This record gives sequence, structure tokens and C-alpha cells, in this order.
Amino acid sequence: MSDRPDTPLLDMVHTPADLKGLSDAQLSQLARELRAETISAVSVTGGHLGAGLGVVEMTVALHHVFDAPKDKIIWDVSHQCYPHKILTGRRDRIRTLRMKDGLSGFTKRTESPFDPFGAAHSSTSISAALGFAVARDLGGSCPEGLGDAIAVIGDGALSAGMAYEALNNAGHLGKRLIVILNDNEMSIAPPVGAMSSYLSRLYAGAPFQELKAAAKGAVSFLPPPFQEGAKRAKEMLKGMTVGGTLFEELGFSYVGPIDGHDMDQLLNVLRTVKHRADGPILIHAITVKGKGYAEHRPDRGHATGKFDVVTGEQNKALSNAPSYTKVFADTLIDEAARDPKIVAITAAMPSGTGLDLFAQRYASRTFDVGIAEQHGVTFCAGLAAGGMKPFCTMYSTFLQRGYDQIVHDVALQNLPVRFAIDRAGLVGADGATHAGSFDIVYLSALPNMVVMAAANEAELRHMVATAAAYDDGPIAFRFPRGEGVGCELPEQGEILEIGKGRIVKQGTTVAILSFGTRLAEVEAACEALAARGITPTIADARFAKPLDTELILKLASDHEALITIEEGSVGGFGSHVAQLLSEEGVFDQGLKFRSMVLPDTFIDHANPRDMYDVAGLNAEDIEAKVLDMLDIGVVRGRSGAR
Amino acid sequence: MSDRPDTPLLDMVHTPADLKGLSDAQLSQLARELRAETISAVSVTGGHLGAGLGVVEMTVALHHVFDAPKDKIIWDVSHQCYPHKILTGRRDRIRTLRMKDGLSGFTKRTESPFDPFGAAHSSTSISAALGFAVARDLGGSCPEGLGDAIAVIGDGALSAGMAYEALNNAGHLGKRLIVILNDNEMSIAPPVGAMSSYLSRLYAGAPFQELKAAAKGAVSFLPPPFQEGAKRAKEMLKGMTVGGTLFEELGFSYVGPIDGHDMDQLLNVLRTVKHRADGPILIHAITVKGKGYAEHRPDRGHATGKFDVVTGEQNKALSNAPSYTKVFADTLIDEAARDPKIVAITAAMPSGTGLDLFAQRYASRTFDVGIAEQHGVTFCAGLAAGGMKPFCTMYSTFLQRGYDQIVHDVALQNLPVRFAIDRAGLVGADGATHAGSFDIVYLSALPNMVVMAAANEAELRHMVATAAAYDDGPIAFRFPRGEGVGCELPEQGEILEIGKGRIVKQGTTVAILSFGTRLAEVEAACEALAARGITPTIADARFAKPLDTELILKLASDHEALITIEEGSVGGFGSHVAQLLSEEGVFDQGLKFRSMVLPDTFIDHANPRDMYDVAGLNAEDIEAKVLDMLDIGVVRGRSGAR
Repeated sequence: MSDRPDTPLLDMVHTPADLKGLSDAQLSQLARELRAETISAVSVTGGHLGAGLGVVEMTVALHHVFDAPKDKIIWDVSHQCYPHKILTGRRDRIRTLRMKDGLSGFTKRTESPFDPFGAAHSSTSISAALGFAVARDLGGSCPEGLGDAIAVIGDGALSAGMAYEALNNAGHLGKRLIVILNDNEMSIAPPVGAMSSYLSRLYAGAPFQELKAAAKGAVSFLPPPFQEGAKRAKEMLKGMTVGGTLFEELGFSYVGPIDGHDMDQLLNVLRTVKHRADGPILIHAITVKGKGYAEHRPDRGHATGKFDVVTGEQNKALSNAPSYTKVFADTLIDEAARDPKIVAITAAMPSGTGLDLFAQRYASRTFDVGIAEQHGVTFCAGLAAGGMKPFCTMYSTFLQRGYDQIVHDVALQNLPVRFAIDRAGLVGADGATHAGSFDIVYLSALPNMVVMAAANEAELRHMVATAAAYDDGPIAFRFPRGEGVGCELPEQGEILEIGKGRIVKQGTTVAILSFGTRLAEVEAACEALAARGITPTIADARFAKPLDTELILKLASDHEALITIEEGSVGGFGSHVAQLLSEEGVFDQGLKFRSMVLPDTFIDHANPRDMYDVAGLNAEDIEAKVLDMLDIGVVRGRSGAR
Repeated sequence: MSDRPDTPLLDMVHTPADLKGLSDAQLSQLARELRAETISAVSVTGGHLGAGLGVVEMTVALHHVFDAPKDKIIWDVSHQCYPHKILTGRRDRIRTLRMKDGLSGFTKRTESPFDPFGAAHSSTSISAALGFAVARDLGGSCPEGLGDAIAVIGDGALSAGMAYEALNNAGHLGKRLIVILNDNEMSIAPPVGAMSSYLSRLYAGAPFQELKAAAKGAVSFLPPPFQEGAKRAKEMLKGMTVGGTLFEELGFSYVGPIDGHDMDQLLNVLRTVKHRADGPILIHAITVKGKGYAEHRPDRGHATGKFDVVTGEQNKALSNAPSYTKVFADTLIDEAARDPKIVAITAAMPSGTGLDLFAQRYASRTFDVGIAEQHGVTFCAGLAAGGMKPFCTMYSTFLQRGYDQIVHDVALQNLPVRFAIDRAGLVGADGATHAGSFDIVYLSALPNMVVMAAANEAELRHMVATAAAYDDGPIAFRFPRGEGVGCELPEQGEILEIGKGRIVKQGTTVAILSFGTRLAEVEAACEALAARGITPTIADARFAKPLDTELILKLASDHEALITIEEGSVGGFGSHVAQLLSEEGVFDQGLKFRSMVLPDTFIDHANPRDMYDVAGLNAEDIEAKVLDMLDIGVVRGRSGAR
């Protein structure tokens, strides 16, 4: 896709130890090469480009000044870890990022000792770093040793409540701990030029408790034209929205803001912090997301497909069917046109959830609460109590952050919050951290909750309409990442009867009851089985809660065997079906019953199909399960661990 | 227990409308009577006394100035709602607080239209209030109308990340919204006297944007002896840990601090806010927890049993067996003496979890992270990664707050965090909000997780020892509120084999496999069954994950019927057993299998035994289930809905 960049210095760096002997000028050169290599690698693999480009200099400076893996560098959310991976012995595999059997797109403890704490969900780094710092001071140990704990966290991630809780606790404990605020919000102009560098050197040269006095005193020694600038810099230091005052009130020493792309500033500050810190320190670095390549794009190269380095053009595969996300958004926009009470809530994922489209049409009815799922869910509960119809639109994996609020504020009060759960099931390149494996389990356990899963994009349209119409309590519907099956989409969604499934195809002997988008695999399996003269009944449950007891009991009584299948863990749909069957005494006289669920492992990134292969939930697996239940022995024709 | 206080004014108040015509002086008198009535009521019922006494004047002032239920007064965590309940038509039932069929100890939507949003977990009020405010502005509706939204939140609750997320979002949206910070931290001295009242009147008289200027200007007009005091008051206003600066940076107008027990200040400020607020306002009120009765007690009357109003003496029932909490704490202290890597973490519940005892012995190894379960769990993950043995000690219901962190930071990374889960199952007077019903479900779904439940206090001791010894990944053990069964306690816990249950009593025909403290009820049921010649096998599973597959399959093959029982919802232990049985083909040829779990309802407060009666999980229910499975018809001898 693009030629490899020329990287003579980088070629000599195999581990961070190789950075130790480099001069400051060489480190700047290394950063330039590292940036080029990062761009080149992501052009081949796709992935998170902008975040990494924003921390290239910081990555080099951190690995030069600190001693990983003894010192623990913890990248928050870790979108920005590609340059770090290149410098920590993984350059040879960097063009396998996010591919099956390749490097993870995130930090991962099992991948490298230089990844002391994996991440992918936001705002965990300070908590983890504090854990390392306390462990160090209490005599903890780990194979690589325990040195400094350094959390690098973006300004967006710092907006989450969890990060605030961690700062609060860290400031209270007073342990030596380094938090680097990687601030790339363009609402804050980066401090540049002589004055900023001057102040930065001041910080680096003086004990922390004298920093402010020094900065204050310094103004009067400056020639008058510079005094105003110094004052402004001080004001900025004190007056920023997430500025020094707040951090100091929380017990941190505050250093900054510094230019996160200025190697000299970074090295000065990090060296000083390393030698003098005796408590929690926050270094406020201003960076530019996408620096050096994508900084002028609207999304600053946040997440990109493969692209051409010269033209910037992305290679996107053409799809035949619309994505589930798009179908959800279009349908919600349509429903909202008819119902002014519909509002949509996202937690910092407007484009991922399709709510950017909703916002274009209904700006005042769209709420992005930030990385704040706890608040987001209870905000929806309040909206519902006030007579609105809130669609709480979150990825399955992130909704976990709001679980207590779902229980305590929504389900217990039976408030009609609509949970639109995107990225249900296995998600592909983002891997195990982003899998939506548990929502069926953790939602179906709750009284008052209605839980649906869409079997295809037409069903999703029905479920959006159903959720819009249902006002008796909370209701959730889940749908996967990626494209639909290409079925015909009805103009308008139809309101489904709550707790009623449907027979897709009437057959004999075996019934397969699917919950969600495994239905296509079930159908494929049944086609293969037909060649053997086996014609299972296929049903789409639609609801995990309430169950369609009539349908299920009839399937059980009319067939020799019953299989449930879902894209979730044990404890969910299949377990609720088993509970029904046992309570009704169906097992008393015997029923061949199997519940196909995700296995009891976290499944590594690959494309979703491969991941479901590992999970044993593809058509071949369903076919094998049916044959096995009917005692028809077959030799499995596929490789792949099962 | 004590004579009713004399309350002539309060006797004339039946709804908040009756407060409207009262003079300011009468309101002060009413507050005194309300305080006396609150003390009298809690002396009879027990419950949260200190919180309510701290907001007596605020409750009166709010109901005088605002118009509930159209205006939504949302009490955070709602420990402080008893005076509110007395003023809102529930005085006649106030001496039934927390009793079966009596008033809830918390606000509850189904109890009164004056409770617009129920609470019991901390820090939800601002999110909910913001939901009401947005609903109002977008044309939402509810039967009582939609007026102002007012959140009353304590300084402790404001420390939680969720509250910060809500402030952040509310400040951004800029809707009219009133947050009252009920600040009863004694680390901050309450501002008293003429100067404070003067400043307070200033606030009340001037538009908000001019408040600070007015305060500043006012100083120079004062006689010199007062100038210093005025300056100090301003400094306090600006320099408090959770002071004005922070709130203003988040987009709130800040008013305060005011004396939350001074009716004139309260009325002035609330009237002004009501008439002038055009965005989010934070009123900072300094109050004294337990004011007027328990302010000098160490716990300020936080939660009390029944007591004598004159002597303050509490009537505590004598118990024969130690509480599970105490056994946990004693055992952990004992284990910690042998293992310096053991540390204990609580989220603002040191005494409830017994970690106050641990802290007395190992102060430096005890961490109270505040109301911050998200951070708490990931902090533990960091500690574990650093080689420590963290015991993450939380109530089941509050652990829900850290679910994503359990999934993403602990289970996925297979870090050996020990989850000590107190208050598992139904908890009694605190009711549905505090029930620990879901942890078996939401933990057992996770790969790498070991899930145990103690059948009695001796088993709990073994499980603490087992968790201390187990270093291969995360491990959880749950135990209920209240006293143990009185069994003999071993000197030291024994390390259990992971995934192995035990036969308690060998029998025939029916096997009952218990997970947790229902074991005592199972044994009682079996005693009753023995009279009919039925002698079930009794087994204690100990582990929901990994299952003792050998034991379970043997129970299934050796008996005609198998019953599982647990103090949790469907989807947990019984479901995992059903999954095993179905996968192994046990149901193919027939097995009478039943899984006894909590019903699909939220169960109202009562004593735990009564709650389990509603749940159908007591000895009589187990007995009936066995008879039913054996087709032995019986007439149920007990009343009680089933």
C-alpha cells in the first residue's frame, strides 16, 4: 500500500534500553521516524491513528527518562499505544495490528511485559497506576520489579467519573504517582513560543513547592513586552477548565501546561519529576491529535481503515446491506418524526451509535453526556420519569458501566427507558475488551425488564418501533456490529407483541430457537442438514424476557430435541428457557435440550466470523450439534479449536 | 418507648400546601416540632436519624418555597427523607418506617407523588434532576406537572464519580436546575454570625452575576473590625475543597456557603433562586448531621436501632452467633497476620463491612476509596498486578457500580482480586434497593472468575482462607447480612479445593444442592420430610464457578430428582448446573430437575425471613417443592402469596 519510510535511528531501537544513550537531538529525530513508521503501519492495518500521532514525542521521552517495564507506563484506553508498541519490541509485528493472531490494538498484559495494564475502556489508568504505586510502597512485587507508576490519560477520559474518583483517592493517599494529562482539546489553545518554554524550564529547575512563587517572581524580571504574556500564561495555568486549581485541590502537584510535542520541554519536565516527585504529580501536556498527518481532518484520524499514505484515501469495502447501526439510526429518526417525546442519549459515541445522524435532524433531542454511562443511564431514568421516551444508546460492553443504575434507577422503579444496545456479541478487531457478551445475562436477571434481540435488520426496525411504543417499563434491544443480512426493510417498523416469538420455518424432530443474529447461521445449518433429510423447525425468539412460554413449550412437546442459540454467555436466554422447561416439568420425562452460548473464555480479536468459529457458534457448529443430538456420528471437516 | 412530643403547628400540616401560609417565624417553630417528631419516630423504628436531623430546616424551607409534587425535590441516597415524609402526608405511618408493609426507609415513587425519584444508592440525584429539567423544557409531562428540579446531595455523595459526571453534563446543558449541597463535613467550619448572614442577604438581594462583585465591594463599606471577617468569608467561598471555583468551572452559579439551619438564610436564598435562576445553580449549605439530638455522637446518629429518647440508649437484641461481617473481618485480620500481602479495600463502608476492625490492626493496609466502586475495583486490579492480595470488600448491591471494571480490568486480565461480597441475598429493612440478588448471575458469567458462597460462618472462614491462598485469578465469595447459624468456628480457615462441593448428608431419591446460606433451610425442610419417610441427600455446592461437575453428575445419576437452591436470581448457580446437565445429555433420558431462585420481582422491605417467605425460598417452600416433584399432593398450611 505504501513504501516503508526511511528510519535509520528507529532501526537500531529494539527495546527502550536502546533509547538510553541517545542525545536529546537524536530523540527528536527518533520521534520523527517513529511518527512516519506509525503512519505507515496504520495505513496497512487500519486502526486508531490520531491518538498515537499525538503522543509520539511523549512516548519517546517517557521511554528515555523512565525504565519500563520496571516503571509502569499505563496508557489510558490505549488507542494511543501503537508508537509504544513499536518501541517495546513489537515493531516486527506492528503491521499485524488488530488482525487474527496479530498484535492487539490495545495494550495487553499477555502480549508484553511493557504493557503492565491492559485497557480499551476509558478512564481506568489512574486507578490502576495508584494500585501499582501503593503495591510498590507496601512491598508488593512483580517479575519486572515495581518502580514508578505513570498514567497517561486524555482530557476526554478525564471527564469520566471514574477518573475523578481515582484522582480524589490518589490525592488523599499522597503516594508518589505521575499522571500525564494528554490534553488535545482544541478549545484550549496550546501555549507556544519563548514564554511557555521559559516557564517550562522554570518548573523543571525549581522544587515543586516553589514553582508558583518562581513563576510569579519571574514576571517582574522580564522586559515589559513579555510581562503581559507571562501573566496570561499564569492565568491559563490557574484558570483552565480542568486546570491546576482543581488538581491542586485534589492533592496533586500541577505542572504545566507544556507543549507535548516539544521534546526539550518533555524531557526537562519528566527528568525533574522523576528526580523530585514525592507525591502525586499531574503533568499537563498540550498535544495535537493526529499530529504530523491527520491533524487537519475533522476526526483527526481517530479510527481509520487502511489508507494510502500519499493521498490519504481510505480503502473501504463496499457493502450490500446497510449496517445495523444505520438501520437503527434511520428508524429512530423516523419514529421521532411521529413522536416528539423521543429523545436519544449517547455516552461520547455519537458516530459509533449513529446518533450523529439523529442529531443532524433533532439536535435539541440528542444528548451526548460524555464518557459517563452511570450518569447517562440515570439521566434517562429522570427523563422517563418526566414523561419523555429516552433511547439510551450504548455499546453492550460500555453499558456495563451503568449496570447499577439500570438496576437501581431504571428497573427497580420500572421506568420506561429504552436501551438500544449496539455491538452486541463478538465485535471483531477490537477484540475481547469490546465484546458484548454479557448484556443478555445481566439484563434478563432484572425484574421489569424486557429484553429483545434482532435477528436481522428488518427485525431491528420492528424492535425500535416496539420500544418507542412500549411505555410500561424498561425495554432493551440488542444488535450486532456490522452489516445486516440484506433482507428487505419495511418502510416502517411494526410493533411487536411483547413476549412473542415467531416460527421461521416449520420442520420436524429438531427445533432450533434462535435469539438474535445467529438466525442466519441457523438457516445455513438447516440447509446443510436438509441434504441429509433432516429438516429442523426454526424459530426466532425475539424476546429473552418475557419468554414466549407457549411457543417454547410447544417446540419442546412437538420435537425430540430443542436447541437454543444466542450471542452471549451462559446465564442468559438459554438459561431462562431451561428454567422454564424445568419448572414445567418438561425434563422430567426427557427432552434433548442444548443451549449454545459463548464459551467460558475471552476470545481474542479476529474478524467476527473467525471469532464465532472459535466460539463454536457458526453454521457448521450448529449442524454438528444437531447431528450429535440425533446420534448421527460425523467426522468434523474443519480445523479450528473447539 | 417515649411519649410523643408536643407539636401544635405540625399537627396542622397535612400536606406541603399547609406550609404556604405560615410566617417565617412559624416556619422556624415548625422546624423545631418536626425535629422532635423525627427523633420520636426513629426512637420507635430505628433507622437513619442523623441525616434527617441535618436537613429539618431545609426540608421545611424547600416545601414552603417550592411547590411539590410539581416541583421535584430529589433527596440523594434519601437517608435524610424522614422529615420530608412527615410533611408530605405520611406522618400517620412514620412509626412504621422500615417495617413490613410500612413506609420505606427511602424515597419511593410508588409510595407517594412527593417522591419523584427513589433512591438508596448514593449520588444519583443530580442525574435524575437533570432528566426532569430537560423533560420539562422539551415538553415532557407527568401527572403532577413538571416544575423545578431540585437535587439535595451530601458532600460525601458528591465525591462519587457519577455526581461529577452529572454536574459536568448539567453545566454543559445550562438548563435551570437547582442542586443543594448539604455539606456536613466538620472539617469545614460552619460560617456563623453577623457577617455570614450579611453576605447571605447580599446573595439573596443581587442578581447572581453580581454576587461576587457585591461581596467584594461590600467589604470596604464595613467598619474596619468587620473587614477581616468579610475577607475570610470570601476566601472560604473561593477556597473550599469543593468550593465555588470548581462548580463555576463546571458551569454552575454558586451560592454559599449558607447556614443550613438558619431559616432566614435558607428562605432568602431559596426565594431568590426560585425567582431568578436561569441556569444550573448550586447552593452550598453547611449543616450539622444529627443536629439537635445526635450531633455529639461519634456517628452523629447515622443509622440507629430503636432507642430511648431521654437516655439515648439503644435496645439491641442479644445474639447467640457472631455476624457474618464480624467473622469475615476477624478471619481476614488473622490471615493478614500471616500474609503481609493482604490488603483490604472498602468504598466508604468501613464499619458495614467490618473493615474498621481490620483498619484498627492494619491501618496502612486498609483503603477506603470513598463512594467510588468503579475506581475501587480497578485500584484492586492494579494492586493485584503489583503483587498484592487485595480483598475488595463491598456489599453485593454496591458492587454493581463496579461491574464493568470487574469485567474489563479484573476478569479479562485474570488478576487475582478477591471479592468479599457482604449483604448477599435479601437484606431486610433496607428493602429492594439493597438486595444482593444479582451477583451470582453477573459474576458467574465471566470467564476466569471463581464464585463461592458460604453456607455458614465456618464455611465463610474457609472461604476467606481459600481466597487468600488462591492466586491464579479473581475469586469471589458471598455471604449474607446478619448472624451466622451458631456453628462451631474453626480456629483457622481451611483452604478449600477449588470447584469442589461437599455432601452434607447422604440420602436417597431426592438430592438438594444448596449454594449459600439457604443450607439451613434445606436442612430444616429435610427434617420435616423425614417425618414422611423422605430422606433427601443434602449437598453444599460451595462453588457456582467452577462447578463441581463430578458431584453434580453423580447426584443426578443417583437420584430421581435434583433441586438447586440459591439466594439469587435466575441465570446464576442453578442455570450453570442446568447448562452442565443439558450439555452432558442428562435431560435426554429424563431427570426431575428444579432450580429454586429469587422470583422475578423486587421484594419490599421486611425482615429477611419474611422476604424469603415472599420469595418462596424458606424450609416450607423447599419441603413443598420436594413433595410436588415426588407427586405427593399436600395442602399448603401457610398463608403468604406464592
